[in-house]
Amino acid sequence: MDELTPKQIDVAYQRIKSFIIKTPLISNETINKKINSNVYFKLENLQLTGSFKIRGAFNKISQLSDEEKSNGVVAYSSGNHAQAVAYASNYYKIKATIVMPKSAPSIKIENTKKYGAKVIYYNEINESREKVAFENAYKENRIIIKPYDDLDIIAGQGTVGKEIVDELKLQNIKPDIYLCSCGGGGLIAGSSTYLKQTFPNIKNFSVEPEAFNDTQLSLKKNSIVKNNESAKSICDALLVSQPGDITFPINQNTLSGGLSVSDEEVKKTIIELAENIKVVSEPSGAVAAAALLTKKIDIKNKNIVVLVSGGNIDYKLFTSITQLH
Amino acid sequence: MDELTPKQIDVAYQRIKSFIIKTPLISNETINKKINSNVYFKLENLQLTGSFKIRGAFNKISQLSDEEKSNGVVAYSSGNHAQAVAYASNYYKIKATIVMPKSAPSIKIENTKKYGAKVIYYNEINESREKVAFENAYKENRIIIKPYDDLDIIAGQGTVGKEIVDELKLQNIKPDIYLCSCGGGGLIAGSSTYLKQTFPNIKNFSVEPEAFNDTQLSLKKNSIVKNNESAKSICDALLVSQPGDITFPINQNTLSGGLSVSDEEVKKTIIELAENIKVVSEPSGAVAAAALLTKKIDIKNKNIVVLVSGGNIDYKLFTSITQLH
Repeated sequence: MDELTPKQIDVAYQRIKSFIIKTPLISNETINKKINSNVYFKLENLQLTGSFKIRGAFNKISQLSDEEKSNGVVAYSSGNHAQAVAYASNYYKIKATIVMPKSAPSIKIENTKKYGAKVIYYNEINESREKVAFENAYKENRIIIKPYDDLDIIAGQGTVGKEIVDELKLQNIKPDIYLCSCGGGGLIAGSSTYLKQTFPNIKNFSVEPEAFNDTQLSLKKNSIVKNNESAKSICDALLVSQPGDITFPINQNTLSGGLSVSDEEVKKTIIELAENIKVVSEPSGAVAAAALLTKKIDIKNKNIVVLVSGGNIDYKLFTSITQLH
Repeated sequence: MDELTPKQIDVAYQRIKSFIIKTPLISNETINKKINSNVYFKLENLQLTGSFKIRGAFNKISQLSDEEKSNGVVAYSSGNHAQAVAYASNYYKIKATIVMPKSAPSIKIENTKKYGAKVIYYNEINESREKVAFENAYKENRIIIKPYDDLDIIAGQGTVGKEIVDELKLQNIKPDIYLCSCGGGGLIAGSSTYLKQTFPNIKNFSVEPEAFNDTQLSLKKNSIVKNNESAKSICDALLVSQPGDITFPINQNTLSGGLSVSDEEVKKTIIELAENIKVVSEPSGAVAAAALLTKKIDIKNKNIVVLVSGGNIDYKLFTSITQLH
């Protein structure tokens, strides 16, 4: 097992803190009353590039050697990691090629290009994005910036946990539960490791779309389980087929279990977050809040931290969802 | 002239900081490129009760004597000050009566009641809200918590300026311009005083709805000018007829001028803030951003701080505006 220590996350934070936004931890009276608990929403949808992914990207790319930097990087992503790698590469004046599905939200494709990366589409029916990325990387001798199965990426995403801990300590709050979205599991691996160190009694839960609940199933079975290949969900950033080889053993260690939510529950949550917290969230960014609001676990009289992981939703989808109210 | 010193704001901050949210100062690549400047949005729409008003309310109410507290308070407000006074009163277990117009956004009326205040409606056609409030206060020997013309309220709102200064210093940024919404002028009086102390060369501008540009006109004329009584605007929190007796002299001293924006410009700005910054703003909360995006002054190659002052918009209005896109 590749080890991840809280110390690595502290080091990552020192490395990236001047680049990123220290996002707020927000509580809301209406939601607290409804849930009968104190809920603290960490708003990574307000983060640079619209998601937490910039944390890992800066932590990884800032450490590349001069030679690696001059060769450029390749990444594959449905969009948030794409934007983050494009943004950080642009900062260091590194060439970046990103392999994306054509079906990715336009906002994510457009921003990735806007940040100066070259976007290559792959055929989702018969191509593997990893394969297309590796071929491109091999051809030009470039390093691959993986979306989650990399300790530097995991430590970078883990810095969100450090910010949560700092803020909770400042407010003298001891969290009982942490709910966090999970695709490949990098964000929750890093952040739950950090939270667990400071608050050993905290219960960490991954939250996934119900058709992509591979981490939930794998945690139950104590070994890696794959999703049904024909599954669909509006949570475009969480359509990962199985837990990562590096992230899963970490998550086995730090998580109390896995939860999952339906697309309909996610839509209702996007509305609630807009109405009460005053923020725009993307479907994948809202899954943890959806698990909270639909009470997937016992959450009465607790201090609960909920990660809102991204806000990159196509504007049309956002307005069509908010009209459902 | 009643004097307001930055020191009073520092003292207010120590008094209220444990109650309020330290809201984030957010920059956005897309908007920076569009404007050709570095813009920092201070998101007071994410503040407790959905607007900056809670700062002044806590600063004032926390200082009441035991006798004043036991008698209770009265306030008049179209809604954000109402919610703030209700919230802070509830915290100190003080009875609060708030005089509100029936036409106030439902979200503001409902929240004011939810925080435990008694709401009294006044007749907007033939009654003065101040008069109704004073009669109620007199009857029950209660103190009035004024919305802006009170040094404790102004110092409380000014703490938003302290947070901006702290964050800018941390990031080593020197601001050139500050754009801030203006109704009675309490928020901008306090925050511009604090900013001007630290950055003497900053240019502070008030922003109002164009039909309620009394501060803009008064600054030009160097004396208090009233608005046209029949004026209308969707910016329900900024429908003030004239600058305050205490706020105006302060603003004369700290502001470089006044700007104003149309309701149509405000609507487009609500969309841009949702799309790029990922936040929900109310019309009054978006006027400063509207002045920026419509370039009411020369803003090229500058560091600009923009206050987003509130997010309490009726959900139906929000969805009807966001559909305009």
